[in-house]
Amino acid sequence: MLLCIVGAQLRDNHATAVYSRPMFGFELVGRCGRARAGLLRTPHGRVETPAFMPVGTQAGVKALTQRDLRETGAQMVLANTYHLMLRPGEELVAELGGLHGFTGWSGPFLTDSGGYQVFSLAPLRRITEQGVHFQSHIDGAAHLLGPERSIAVQEKLGADIMMAFDECPPYPAPHEAVAEATQRTTRWARRSRDAQRRGDQWLFGIVQGGVFADLRETSAVELTAMDFPGYAIGGLSVGEPKPDMRRVIGQLDALLPEKRSRYLMGVGTPLDILEGVARGVDLFDCVLPTRNARNGQLFTSEGRLSIRNARYRRDPRPPDPACGCYTCRTASRAYLRHLHMAGEMAAATLLTIHNLTHYLDTLKQVRQAILLGRFEDFRRLAHRKLRADDPGPTSLVPDE
Amino acid sequence: MLLCIVGAQLRDNHATAVYSRPMFGFELVGRCGRARAGLLRTPHGRVETPAFMPVGTQAGVKALTQRDLRETGAQMVLANTYHLMLRPGEELVAELGGLHGFTGWSGPFLTDSGGYQVFSLAPLRRITEQGVHFQSHIDGAAHLLGPERSIAVQEKLGADIMMAFDECPPYPAPHEAVAEATQRTTRWARRSRDAQRRGDQWLFGIVQGGVFADLRETSAVELTAMDFPGYAIGGLSVGEPKPDMRRVIGQLDALLPEKRSRYLMGVGTPLDILEGVARGVDLFDCVLPTRNARNGQLFTSEGRLSIRNARYRRDPRPPDPACGCYTCRTASRAYLRHLHMAGEMAAATLLTIHNLTHYLDTLKQVRQAILLGRFEDFRRLAHRKLRADDPGPTSLVPDE
Repeated sequence: MLLCIVGAQLRDNHATAVYSRPMFGFELVGRCGRARAGLLRTPHGRVETPAFMPVGTQAGVKALTQRDLRETGAQMVLANTYHLMLRPGEELVAELGGLHGFTGWSGPFLTDSGGYQVFSLAPLRRITEQGVHFQSHIDGAAHLLGPERSIAVQEKLGADIMMAFDECPPYPAPHEAVAEATQRTTRWARRSRDAQRRGDQWLFGIVQGGVFADLRETSAVELTAMDFPGYAIGGLSVGEPKPDMRRVIGQLDALLPEKRSRYLMGVGTPLDILEGVARGVDLFDCVLPTRNARNGQLFTSEGRLSIRNARYRRDPRPPDPACGCYTCRTASRAYLRHLHMAGEMAAATLLTIHNLTHYLDTLKQVRQAILLGRFEDFRRLAHRKLRADDPGPTSLVPDE
Repeated sequence: MLLCIVGAQLRDNHATAVYSRPMFGFELVGRCGRARAGLLRTPHGRVETPAFMPVGTQAGVKALTQRDLRETGAQMVLANTYHLMLRPGEELVAELGGLHGFTGWSGPFLTDSGGYQVFSLAPLRRITEQGVHFQSHIDGAAHLLGPERSIAVQEKLGADIMMAFDECPPYPAPHEAVAEATQRTTRWARRSRDAQRRGDQWLFGIVQGGVFADLRETSAVELTAMDFPGYAIGGLSVGEPKPDMRRVIGQLDALLPEKRSRYLMGVGTPLDILEGVARGVDLFDCVLPTRNARNGQLFTSEGRLSIRNARYRRDPRPPDPACGCYTCRTASRAYLRHLHMAGEMAAATLLTIHNLTHYLDTLKQVRQAILLGRFEDFRRLAHRKLRADDPGPTSLVPDE
């Protein structure tokens, strides 16, 4: 039997938080096994965790207006430092009121450090202790992105939560290379913290170490010694086998401080997220629901569905009869298939609305299950349903 | 002094219409000079005229969800017979409940006959008395579209208003060629009428004749002899000079029956529409507000604005401070410019919402001005404002 607590003391913390409204905070309000239900407070509103953050790379979640996004149940939105420093530039965003004023999204924002994108997108990059020298993928201009510049940009962008600048090594990479990147990540984390000037943003550290237990342990120990208000798990979902990913998350669950929020970066499928929650993770982000929507793939309560499939040509059913989103309330599979095949942008909008709603609703149900002490039942049922899932021919990321 | 009537008898008609709810009807509820304010009743709701119909070529207005479209103030939506017969096919649309059931748009629909598109889009077309033989621009399949097939397809699509199949000659074309096309249009109109089977759709005739007064007169006389419930003016806005377009519309105002609604096809800019209203036209459609939105051009109360222009880079103002649409309420020019330049689909959505709202709001104001007997003041003011309009470098269709 698992230990499930929705403690009176935790509830008291919660109540205090609500009425005294400190700018930032994170409290656990319940747990079930290792799974945690929490409440993250930011200057732009609360985030009930576990939570999924839609990705708004270029200061907008692709194919959605802010009101569509709001209706999916999104709480915190992720924006990409790398993209925004190149276009439109952080100075312009700051001038227009930071990400909140610029985009009109009034809820919390989190910005990444630019580290991951500079490694995966920028041509001609060169890593030194100072940072990463690279050329813009837009106009070829030369840039240096290091801890100081990353924090300066993120302060201009003005997200509620910023990330320390890290080095994310590719997979696979030899132990020695990963060790070096991990040590540098620790040094860069310290410089990121020292570079912070604004007092109204939280800065999270990022644990690296690839799939190597010793490096993950060192990284976690060194990072937590710096006492960040939250910790991200970086360097996963970069091609490593799923069992390795889960092992690393499980290991970090024991190493990261209980009372700080944990954020698993760039993960993932609905089952990946569920397994992350089962190992004590509070926050997730991934392009999967939004990108796959644009490619015609729907995530449903019964598994994935490719709207391109000819079997849906005359299908009058909504994408997911169990879903209450705008798309499922108003559009048939046949109509969505037509719009998608005809190249209509509205297909991307409608599929994105559904996919994000599905992710966010699922996380809400997960949280409820944790609070009710039924997380393991929920997890078992989800595995049974989604294992039978046939990703179909257009699947981009194979499910397990 | 112009004659402006909002007659008691017209009002009585209106009241009767509202309470007895016949399936179809058109009444004039006011006029000011030649400009008319009317009420068009259809099985799917009323259309207050003069009205602009957004174009939903492939059974959806590009870049919009139905709720976005609804909010712009759209009443009747146009869908294209040519596109829909090729993809997804009229049988499929019929099976899913016709255009209304298929798309979820519960308001009135109008379908064109496919004539214009088959002449402008289909490769390898050949015109015979039977109809137009052409190849699909999608898969190269051979098709014949004539009056009987056009009406059969339009009955399957199930729009509230259908159009007779016509031949729209190019501009310029010699008198003889236009005469031949005009005579054929009359024969095809009769065959279109004879092909009609359903009793719950209105069929409009289309007057052709290019810029030739004698042909326009013959066409109008022959068409009105067939007693259609409404008449479209086709073959304009195909490249002819604006004075010719206006002359033809003015000529037809005197020839078409007063009590039937008039629809000017494929027109146009805000000033074109205003001049159409001034010459007794009730209905308009055009891709301009939607297509230009996707290219970054906004129609505003002060004229056109290209969001690509560098001068808007840091502009915190809404696109049109005089507009109350979702886009103008929530987005700055700087943010819209960023989204557009970054290739984000949401830019197309937001600009389309504004452009359609601008068109539809303008038509509402026009109607109000007619009912208040102030149409000429409105027209004069609009000309003064929009003549100063600089279309800018990305303008696709030069304004006058």
